[in-house]
Amino acid sequence: MNKVTQIARARNGEITPQIAAVAKKEMVDPEKLRIAVAEGRVVIPANVNHEALDPIGIGRMLKTKINANIGNSSLSSCPQQELDKLKTALRYGADTVMDLSTGANITNIRQTIIGNSPAPIGTVPVYECLARVDSANDLTPELILQVIREQAEEGVDYITIHSGLLREHVPMAKKRKLRIVSRGGSIIAKWTQVHQKENPFFSHFDQILEICAEHDVTLSLGDGMRPGCLADASDEAQFAELKVLGDLVRRARAAGVQAMVEGPGHIPLHEIEMNMKREQELCDDAPFYILGPVVIDCAPGYDHITSAIGAALGAYHGAAMLCYVTPKEHLGLPNAEDVRNGVIAYKIAAHAADVGMQRPEARKRDDLISEARADFDWEKQFELALDPDRARQLRQEAIDEKNMDDPGWEPPEGEGKDHYCTMCGPDFCSMRISKEL
Amino acid sequence: MNKVTQIARARNGEITPQIAAVAKKEMVDPEKLRIAVAEGRVVIPANVNHEALDPIGIGRMLKTKINANIGNSSLSSCPQQELDKLKTALRYGADTVMDLSTGANITNIRQTIIGNSPAPIGTVPVYECLARVDSANDLTPELILQVIREQAEEGVDYITIHSGLLREHVPMAKKRKLRIVSRGGSIIAKWTQVHQKENPFFSHFDQILEICAEHDVTLSLGDGMRPGCLADASDEAQFAELKVLGDLVRRARAAGVQAMVEGPGHIPLHEIEMNMKREQELCDDAPFYILGPVVIDCAPGYDHITSAIGAALGAYHGAAMLCYVTPKEHLGLPNAEDVRNGVIAYKIAAHAADVGMQRPEARKRDDLISEARADFDWEKQFELALDPDRARQLRQEAIDEKNMDDPGWEPPEGEGKDHYCTMCGPDFCSMRISKEL
Repeated sequence: MNKVTQIARARNGEITPQIAAVAKKEMVDPEKLRIAVAEGRVVIPANVNHEALDPIGIGRMLKTKINANIGNSSLSSCPQQELDKLKTALRYGADTVMDLSTGANITNIRQTIIGNSPAPIGTVPVYECLARVDSANDLTPELILQVIREQAEEGVDYITIHSGLLREHVPMAKKRKLRIVSRGGSIIAKWTQVHQKENPFFSHFDQILEICAEHDVTLSLGDGMRPGCLADASDEAQFAELKVLGDLVRRARAAGVQAMVEGPGHIPLHEIEMNMKREQELCDDAPFYILGPVVIDCAPGYDHITSAIGAALGAYHGAAMLCYVTPKEHLGLPNAEDVRNGVIAYKIAAHAADVGMQRPEARKRDDLISEARADFDWEKQFELALDPDRARQLRQEAIDEKNMDDPGWEPPEGEGKDHYCTMCGPDFCSMRISKEL
Repeated sequence: MNKVTQIARARNGEITPQIAAVAKKEMVDPEKLRIAVAEGRVVIPANVNHEALDPIGIGRMLKTKINANIGNSSLSSCPQQELDKLKTALRYGADTVMDLSTGANITNIRQTIIGNSPAPIGTVPVYECLARVDSANDLTPELILQVIREQAEEGVDYITIHSGLLREHVPMAKKRKLRIVSRGGSIIAKWTQVHQKENPFFSHFDQILEICAEHDVTLSLGDGMRPGCLADASDEAQFAELKVLGDLVRRARAAGVQAMVEGPGHIPLHEIEMNMKREQELCDDAPFYILGPVVIDCAPGYDHITSAIGAALGAYHGAAMLCYVTPKEHLGLPNAEDVRNGVIAYKIAAHAADVGMQRPEARKRDDLISEARADFDWEKQFELALDPDRARQLRQEAIDEKNMDDPGWEPPEGEGKDHYCTMCGPDFCSMRISKEL
C-alpha cells in the first residue's frame, strides 16, 4: 500500500526516477540522496497524479528552495489573475508554489494551477473546507478528510495542516501581543474551544496519513502558533507546538509519508540560529520550511526586505525552504509585481545562504557576472542577473536621466560596449583605471 | 593646538556639549561615552565650522548608523538635484550624508549641502583634486593638502582618504578578478606606478592630521583595496591594507584626530563575522564603517537588498556605520527614488542589528506597531512605519485592485477602522478570530 511514496520506495532501496532527477540537478550522489529521502531528511513532493511535475528535493543537504504563495482571498482574484501570478513566480525562479485561495472558485483556480505548473504545488486544505461551510465552527473531521482526499486526487504535491496545535496550547497564546496570526491556526484554536474537543487534524492524523500515503502527498506540518511579532517570538506556545510537530514527523515517517515542518514568522536576528537548531533536534532533521522570518516589525511595505534578511540567515543555519514574503505583507494581497519583488528577494536570500555554505558551484553565477563586469560586457551582465529586465530598466533610466541634463548624449561605442558605467563617468572609472595597472 | 577635537577634549576629561548631546540621544552614561571618545572607540564627526550640525556618535557601543551617498558624476546632476537627494536621505533617516561629486560644480554643491544639513557631511577630497587637474597623474601632495584644507574650512565633518593603499600592495591587486573597484584606490594605485613614489595620502599623512586637528575633521580611512566581487573577498590585498589602516588609526589618535575605518564591499555570508572581528583587532576597535557588503554578485537592480543582508549581519557583529547601497548600484547614479529605497533598506538593516543586540529600547517601535496591528489601527501602523508613504500607498493599491474586481466595494466602517486587511478578508481574519478566543 505505501509503495508509491518516495520515502517508502527509497527505504526499499530504490533510486526512484525522481531521486535520480533531483540528484543530477543538485550534483549529489544518488545513493546518498536515496538514504536521505529514506530517513526523511529530504522530501521530494511529487503527487503521483501531478503529471506536469519536474521534481525537486527539499532538505538542508540540498540547495535552498523558495516558495511563492498565490491565491485569492474572499475579496479578490480570478483564475486568470492567479495564473499570471503563477507564471511570474516561476519565471523569476520560485521552486514551489502554494495556492492559498480562500474565496470563490477555489477548485477551478487550483486545477488551472496544477495543470500549468512543473513546480510542486502546495495547498492549505482547511481553506477549502471553510468555503464549504457557513461558519468555521461547522468544520467536521469528515469534511476535512473529504477535501484532503479530493485535493490528493487532483495532484496537490504537499499540504499544510495544522495538526500540532493542541487544545492545551490555546491558553498559552492568550498571553501574546498578537495571539494567533496563522489563519488555519486561529480557526482550529477557536474550533477546539467551541467544541471542547481536540484539533481534528490531530485526532484524525492517522486517516490523513492514509490518504497521503496513497497519492504521495507530502505533509507540511504547519505552525499554527507561529509568532506574529518580535514580542511573541520563541515563546512557550511556539515551542510546545514544535514538540508535537516532531512527534507527528515520526508518525508520518513510520506510515511511509514524507513530512516537512513549517517555521516562523517573526524572529529577531539573535534568535534565528537557535530556532533552526531547535527544529532539527525536536523534529529529527525534517526539512524546515520557514516563513521569512521578518527580523523587525516596523517596515510595512518593505517586508520582502525585512524577511529576506531573516530568511538568508535561517537558510544558512539549516532551513531547507523559504516561503517568500512580498512588499504587500501586512497590508493586502500581492499583485503580479509584488510576486516578482518577493520572489527575487527570496532568490537573493537563498543564493546568499548557498554561497555562504559553499555548496558545489554555488558561486559560479557570481563569478561569471563579475567577469562580465571586468569586461564591461553589459549584455552578459543582464543575462546573468536574477532579474534581467529590472537590471536593463534601471540602467536605461540612468542613461535617460543623463540625457535630460545633456540632450543628445549617448554612451560612446554603443550601449553594449561602453567601457564605463554612469556611476563614475568616463574619467574616473575605477575598473578601467585598474585595468591599466 | 589640538584642543578643538572631540577626542582631545574628551582625553582632557571634558564632557563636551556634543558628547552630552549624543549620550542623551543614545541613553548612555555621558562619562562612559567620554571615555569611549577619548579612546577612539566612538567618533563624533563635528567640524567646528559646520554650524547647522546636530551631532551624532559612531561606534559599536551606540546605535547602528547609516550613511547615504549623494553627489554628481561628470555625467550628470546639478545642485538642486543633489539638494533633493539630501532631503530625501534625511527625511527617510540617513544619519550622515557623503557628497561624492566628481563632476562640475563640486564646491557649489558641497556648500549647498553643508549649509542645509543637520547631519554630518563627508567627502572624498581626491575627487575635487581630480577636477582641478587634466589627468590623475598630475595630482600632487600640495594640491591634496590644499583641497583638504579648503574643505575643512568649509565645514566638512569627515573625509575619506585612501592612505593605507601602499605601492607594495598594488601587485596583490593584479591577481584579482576585479582588481581595484574603489575610485580613489584605483587612481592612487596608478599614481604610485606612474611616479614610482609612495601614495601621497600616506607620505603626507602627518600634514593631513594637522589640518584635521585644527578643524576637527574626522578621518574615514578608506579601503582602496576593498574587494569588488565575492571572488576577491578577504584576500591578501584587502588585509594588507587593513593592517596599515590600523597603524594609521593609532597615529591619528596620537595626534588628537578622530578616525574610523572603512570596510568592504563584497563579502560572502560566512566571512562577515570574521571580517568584523579582524578590523576590531587590527584597528584597536576604531568604528568600522562598511559598504554593504553585498553577499551575492548576481542581482543588479536589487543590490539594496543583497547588501542589506550583509549590512545587518555586519552591524550585528560590530560594524558601527553602514554605507547604503541603492538599487542602481553597479548600473548608474541613483535618483531621489533610489536614495529613498537605499535609505529604507539600510534603516531596516541597522534596526535589525540593534534589535538583535538588544540595545536599550531598540524594540519599542516594533512593539508599538504590533499593538496597533492587534487593534486594527491602520493610521497608527502607518505613522510608526519606517516609510509611512509607502505603507499607505501599497494598502491603497490593494484596495483599488479589489475595487477593479468588485466596483463600488469599500472597506467597511471606514478605512481607518476596518477590522481586517485585504490579505485574509473579513471571514478568515486570524487576528479577529484569535481575539475572540
